Amino acid sequence: MTDLQNNQNENKSNISKMTSLNKETNVSTNCLKTPKGMRDFGPAESLIRKNVMKKIITCFERHGATTIETPVVELMGTLTEKYGEDSKLIYELKDQGGEMLALRYDLTVPFARFVATSKIQFIKRYQIGRVYRRDNPAMARGRFREFYQCDFDIAGIYNTMLPDAECLRIIHEVMSDLNLTYKIKINHRYILDKIMEFCGVPESMFRTTCSSIDKLDKMTWDEVYNEMVNEKKLNSDVAEKIKNFVYKNGKEDVIFWLENIFKDYKDTKLISTFNDMKSLIQICKDFSMDHCISIDLSLARGLDYYTGVIFEAVLVDTNGIGSIAGGGRYDNLVGMFTKKNKSVPCVGMSLGIERIFSVLHKNMKKEKKLRQCTTEVCVVSGQSNMFSNRVKIVSKLWDNGINAETPYKRNKKLLDAFQYCENEQIPLCVVVGEMEWNENSVVIRNQFTREQLTVKIDDMIDTLKNLLNKPNV
Amino acid sequence: MTDLQNNQNENKSNISKMTSLNKETNVSTNCLKTPKGMRDFGPAESLIRKNVMKKIITCFERHGATTIETPVVELMGTLTEKYGEDSKLIYELKDQGGEMLALRYDLTVPFARFVATSKIQFIKRYQIGRVYRRDNPAMARGRFREFYQCDFDIAGIYNTMLPDAECLRIIHEVMSDLNLTYKIKINHRYILDKIMEFCGVPESMFRTTCSSIDKLDKMTWDEVYNEMVNEKKLNSDVAEKIKNFVYKNGKEDVIFWLENIFKDYKDTKLISTFNDMKSLIQICKDFSMDHCISIDLSLARGLDYYTGVIFEAVLVDTNGIGSIAGGGRYDNLVGMFTKKNKSVPCVGMSLGIERIFSVLHKNMKKEKKLRQCTTEVCVVSGQSNMFSNRVKIVSKLWDNGINAETPYKRNKKLLDAFQYCENEQIPLCVVVGEMEWNENSVVIRNQFTREQLTVKIDDMIDTLKNLLNKPNV
Repeated sequence: MTDLQNNQNENKSNISKMTSLNKETNVSTNCLKTPKGMRDFGPAESLIRKNVMKKIITCFERHGATTIETPVVELMGTLTEKYGEDSKLIYELKDQGGEMLALRYDLTVPFARFVATSKIQFIKRYQIGRVYRRDNPAMARGRFREFYQCDFDIAGIYNTMLPDAECLRIIHEVMSDLNLTYKIKINHRYILDKIMEFCGVPESMFRTTCSSIDKLDKMTWDEVYNEMVNEKKLNSDVAEKIKNFVYKNGKEDVIFWLENIFKDYKDTKLISTFNDMKSLIQICKDFSMDHCISIDLSLARGLDYYTGVIFEAVLVDTNGIGSIAGGGRYDNLVGMFTKKNKSVPCVGMSLGIERIFSVLHKNMKKEKKLRQCTTEVCVVSGQSNMFSNRVKIVSKLWDNGINAETPYKRNKKLLDAFQYCENEQIPLCVVVGEMEWNENSVVIRNQFTREQLTVKIDDMIDTLKNLLNKPNV
Repeated sequence: MTDLQNNQNENKSNISKMTSLNKETNVSTNCLKTPKGMRDFGPAESLIRKNVMKKIITCFERHGATTIETPVVELMGTLTEKYGEDSKLIYELKDQGGEMLALRYDLTVPFARFVATSKIQFIKRYQIGRVYRRDNPAMARGRFREFYQCDFDIAGIYNTMLPDAECLRIIHEVMSDLNLTYKIKINHRYILDKIMEFCGVPESMFRTTCSSIDKLDKMTWDEVYNEMVNEKKLNSDVAEKIKNFVYKNGKEDVIFWLENIFKDYKDTKLISTFNDMKSLIQICKDFSMDHCISIDLSLARGLDYYTGVIFEAVLVDTNGIGSIAGGGRYDNLVGMFTKKNKSVPCVGMSLGIERIFSVLHKNMKKEKKLRQCTTEVCVVSGQSNMFSNRVKIVSKLWDNGINAETPYKRNKKLLDAFQYCENEQIPLCVVVGEMEWNENSVVIRNQFTREQLTVKIDDMIDTLKNLLNKPNV
């Protein structure tokens, strides 16, 4: 090829004659950035993300989960009436003939639609994908408009709390695998509703009152009280009564305390809910993870679709990151997509993987540079007439499953090539020299020890594989 | 937990009282489907896709490529004026305050924007991601509105055709790894333009005439001739002249033939282009893949951004699938995103992975059922009072990195559990029985041979790992 730099001017004039490409240069240079709240990830960040995702997938598969994929775009009607106050954050597409579309807001509602569409009765699946929220981005705190979610869900009718507990266990395993210290708050939607009823909250205000209480992890009681009484017009006596409940947290003791308060309620569903919560704690004990969990009556979670157990994991000793995983039981969501509301009960959890990345990224900056390059062998030469032979050698390495490259330039200097290998931490070089080539040989050089040995080309692959400790690929 | 089926009615009335969830059931049940041209992938399909992608990534990394990620959404201005006649297929988002946004149309333009944004001088990267086209879907032929692309690109200034040839080599390796038979057509934009000039096509009609010629793989000469002369108003003599070129294909012989035709042109760029094409063929020979390539003067490729070599791979012996990979050199695209048009030359290729999936899917249907389940050990019991002990055992397996599950029901019958393992091809069971438990033992059962052995719980992990041939995880 002619030197591209020299040809650039000529090239440009030809191209602008032929196409309209360069006319719009002004438009394009204004577009040097990504949309608000969205990001590029370069090789180093992508590698960290890839490694974290691999650990998470390993954990999901340890639990026998399969994976599915649903579109990033859904019909608008699929998403409406599922997210409560958050619905205003849904990203809509332009109507381009026929369908009202939106970008998915989470992976849970699409999963429920998938279960209904595919008429599935039971499935344990994970899904990793991007979701979209037209939120006010706060990049420093890991809040974006486009971000990954990692979800694990179990759909099916079972008579134990084991699926619910397994979601907690997954959080436990992922956090442990990533060396993060965390705790999980647990609550139950039905208990929350009964507390509302007990305190005298009007039924129509159950959800909005809960969503105020849910802010207690970020706001003081006075602020929450103010929101409930002055903004949402809740009776002040009622708000005072709620205070007795929301600071309660612990394990079975909280359930015993509630059982006592509600002992005159002849509500069989409430009784079985209390028993469910005790079973859940028992299974967490059998999982040796009960030290990480606590019942927390202020936890409410905003999304409309939850019907049973709800939970949220927060990091300990990491200020400002907030919840890092959350989930719960949503027994009626699939039914909303089926005729006659034929329900498939579900429970699941979602990992806030972007927040995990931002924590790990901070930790990693303290450590030494990550090797980004996957190349194991670099084929180099000091002589420009060896170009074709370098190409033949690198081709042979690829044929044999060795990660390899050779400089693209015809006359790359040997010392520059060695320097490149050192920077990129490429362990081995094959040096192609005219003298050796005439004897069907090449030199293999260890970039770390600088040891060199001359081998016949026929023995080169075996020698390299031995040096790389690589079995047949 | 109380039996969910029995509680469903009660549940429903409570929920509908509390939230507005069920009011909109009619909306949701109409939304049982995915948007037009988009699809769900269940566990079996996802597994095939995952395995294919793994092979492709292995190949990309064999060539020392890193990976990056860019947003699915780009500023509209980033995408305008890059795709020629295809621009009408870009998916736009609703203007929701401030930014005009669109879903990405390919991964090439976002890559060029990324290179410009990050001020990168050289990079070899791959990217796998979904792209969006408001095209008329033809699902049976593998044409969708949302689909994956797998791209491999090399950016940087080099004085050989090696980067261009490496793209062809990557196609070769992926096709070979997937046991597909293919051939690659190669052409060059500058040669095409000189042919247009030679035949007397007006400069303003170069691109649109090329895009007609490009249809020769799907249309007859008469249809293409008709489009050029009657629709696009090209002079009929000119069209006749073009015919002499477009059926020409071969190797160096085509270049020699062209050199002869253009021998009186004193165009140094054309001379160096011919030399480039001969170098490219030589490198393909050194790569032992020259039998798979041919220069084909009818190949044009529609996208505006190509400036040099262009290529397209088609499957041999698979009717109707069309091109399965394509790409080329685009030396000015990065420059469109930088001030003063500071260019970074690029060459790259994109794998039509959906078409590959649809071919592999057809082939695979002939073969036996794929194992979808990742579970290696199922913990079962014939007694319902062993539920808590099953939970303890499965927890121990997870702790030791063994893929395991236990039935969610308290009283799952032993034979049903064995049947489930057989269906899912789960190789091992741990049977928890009361008698063995009292002696700190469990039974390990091989589901294929039906052999059973009783082991102490302390020895269970080692025994299972030996049976699974699994080193310490």
